[in-house]
Amino acid sequence: MKVIILRWGHRHRDIRVTSHVALTARAFGASGLVIADSEDKTVERTIKRVIDKWGGNFKIEMGVSWRNYIKSWKDKGGITVHLTMYGENIKSSDVMQRIKFSKKNILVLVGSQKVPSEFYHSDVSDFNVAIGNQPHSEVAAIAVFLDRLFEDDKFSDTPKGKFKILPSDRKKIVISTE
Amino acid sequence: MKVIILRWGHRHRDIRVTSHVALTARAFGASGLVIADSEDKTVERTIKRVIDKWGGNFKIEMGVSWRNYIKSWKDKGGITVHLTMYGENIKSSDVMQRIKFSKKNILVLVGSQKVPSEFYHSDVSDFNVAIGNQPHSEVAAIAVFLDRLFEDDKFSDTPKGKFKILPSDRKKIVISTE
Repeated sequence: MKVIILRWGHRHRDIRVTSHVALTARAFGASGLVIADSEDKTVERTIKRVIDKWGGNFKIEMGVSWRNYIKSWKDKGGITVHLTMYGENIKSSDVMQRIKFSKKNILVLVGSQKVPSEFYHSDVSDFNVAIGNQPHSEVAAIAVFLDRLFEDDKFSDTPKGKFKILPSDRKKIVISTE
Repeated sequence: MKVIILRWGHRHRDIRVTSHVALTARAFGASGLVIADSEDKTVERTIKRVIDKWGGNFKIEMGVSWRNYIKSWKDKGGITVHLTMYGENIKSSDVMQRIKFSKKNILVLVGSQKVPSEFYHSDVSDFNVAIGNQPHSEVAAIAVFLDRLFEDDKFSDTPKGKFKILPSDRKKIVISTE
């Protein structure tokens, strides 16, 4: 199962949060990020620097139309999951089970500002999912969604990078793998 | 068990990410946020607006010295958990069990830039905990740490606010509780 994050509504002032979105997506096992209808070379540079040092094959696409991307994703048999505080609660509903059961590639939709109302409709989002029905953060939502989707299987994998951390209770231990 | 987040190293340009830290802390069951050695009225206004609308008793403190805050926290019997990619991995170690087992109030330390090396020592951090040993985001780290700490028990609670969301697979449904 492949997971890609589509970020809608990115503006230049969102650089830091969009970078957190990208790094979180990568660290928790997504394969890539699409910054739809917008471009940001700073975000791209940040994530490329991280990949160069810490490894993995995370891909960034920018400037593509969200409508076309979603249509093409669905045409290829993938499903879409819109993360929104208004959606079905992952605790009080069985929505995570239904998503996992589909065993399809997942495009995760997150806004950086209020999304168009179309996002709630079935031609855009197959599922509207709330990581709790309180306002918080798309970064938090992606982390918890992927953590539960992959059931702990992904985020501690170490992609083969130039450097690797040895976990420690007291020190910063980084080893070179080259 | 009470949990407070202490944010170290906040600068004005971190406003958006610090706001995400605050909202995530609140939504996932923490009792408050301390912005140490710095002040930011914008972050405070954002979280106060959210509390006014959506409820809860989340507290913000600003400008206090991190050293004094941590010392006083420990003097009162609380423990400190530093979230860092260099720490003990929550997947491959039993660090979450040891933290839960202590049943003490927890001060969670997160940086917004590189933290002083003291943060890794036992006089500051009782635990150095990695939500995966890859770089990502303090917002993601707080969300997953609290999600696992409270074992699903907190973040979907609805504090009593003026408004409440009815989870929906297709619509934005907000009801007034007044």
